[in-house]
Amino acid sequence: MNPTAAILLIGDEILSGRTKDSNGNHLATRLTEVGIDLLEIRVVPDEHAVIVAALNALRGAHSHVFTSGGIGPTHDDITADAVAAAYGVGIGVREDARAILATNYDNPADLNEMRLRMARIPDGARLIDNPISKAPGFSLGNVHVMAGVPVIFEAMVAGLLPSLTGGAPLRSVSVRVERPEGAVAAGLAEIAAAFPAISIGSYPFVTDDGFGTNIVARGADAALLAAAEAEILTLR
Amino acid sequence: MNPTAAILLIGDEILSGRTKDSNGNHLATRLTEVGIDLLEIRVVPDEHAVIVAALNALRGAHSHVFTSGGIGPTHDDITADAVAAAYGVGIGVREDARAILATNYDNPADLNEMRLRMARIPDGARLIDNPISKAPGFSLGNVHVMAGVPVIFEAMVAGLLPSLTGGAPLRSVSVRVERPEGAVAAGLAEIAAAFPAISIGSYPFVTDDGFGTNIVARGADAALLAAAEAEILTLR
Repeated sequence: MNPTAAILLIGDEILSGRTKDSNGNHLATRLTEVGIDLLEIRVVPDEHAVIVAALNALRGAHSHVFTSGGIGPTHDDITADAVAAAYGVGIGVREDARAILATNYDNPADLNEMRLRMARIPDGARLIDNPISKAPGFSLGNVHVMAGVPVIFEAMVAGLLPSLTGGAPLRSVSVRVERPEGAVAAGLAEIAAAFPAISIGSYPFVTDDGFGTNIVARGADAALLAAAEAEILTLR
Repeated sequence: MNPTAAILLIGDEILSGRTKDSNGNHLATRLTEVGIDLLEIRVVPDEHAVIVAALNALRGAHSHVFTSGGIGPTHDDITADAVAAAYGVGIGVREDARAILATNYDNPADLNEMRLRMARIPDGARLIDNPISKAPGFSLGNVHVMAGVPVIFEAMVAGLLPSLTGGAPLRSVSVRVERPEGAVAAGLAEIAAAFPAISIGSYPFVTDDGFGTNIVARGADAALLAAAEAEILTLR
């Protein structure tokens, strides 16, 4: 059994439609590569009680929870407090985080009260390196808290993932069939039944030439996957 | 109080990272326009029990639940059965849905057993028109079930939304500031405190020139929003 994961994206801007999230897809791809099974993505607004409830639901259900957003210096950055509340631990400015932040500023006065909010870390957390803008993320228990800005999120993910234990990477093969789903569905159901260890998905598409189907088979066993692929190719 | 909503995206392909979802962002934008407050987006795999649990959690918490994916003809299309199970109602091929599907095929034999799966509708549901590929979506209670293919999803949304009662459309203004978040955070906190009816978000960005901040204010009252915008502009 591979470890499991959920992603919690925190931000009103995604729910209003203003921002198209890319962090969920980026991390989903990375997790697939390292053999951690992503079982849920959830987007919630910048509301303390909602974030706490989501954190507690997800951290109890999965091996890992990865969050994105809400750890900057402004009034709507409330993720660190929500994580502390979810775990029932204290939170305050931590000296090592403050020292990291301070390297950003030649003039110490520029590390103002609002910016110091980024050094507020829940008790017992381990810092996650931010090579882009210094302000660290952190891991507490099985919750990994990262920034929402994609370039920073991706850099934090790159640093964090090697420290987590993955399982068998999920391999996948894709077969594009220029026939509508309804024409291949019966054959596909037979193949799915014959290969219970392979997950077979079918994704219709529409082009100017008509309807087609992308068939994707996923599994950890390369030989089984190749056998399933051979069967799927007969549907073209 | 505006009606509230959740979006439930159903599909292994999003969780594996293979597919970048666009339906969530599309519907988020449409809901904001019609004054329905989107409070959650959740992505779950093609697993019956997980879909049923998510449907029951979300339909009890929100005025509307919109689903995307899993209503095609193949073995992994299990959304309609999950909706019937969530409501504890029966499901079967419905004559009006079969008649709509049949218009796709000159040869009646082409409406095969797998394709007929797309005419299986939970008891008591109302059909949602699909102008692209005919196979209908449906609404049951406050759950609206639509296709995952973006062009079809968007066409179904366009037909469905005018039938729902919205509230006051959320207006928003954006101000781009070429200063890092930490330099505007204190002023922004004061403005947020002075305008409690306006939701003010702050979204940092990174360019080759350095760090900047997009500030977005949202609210239903145009005059209040303009007053908040004037204050925000002083931070540039």
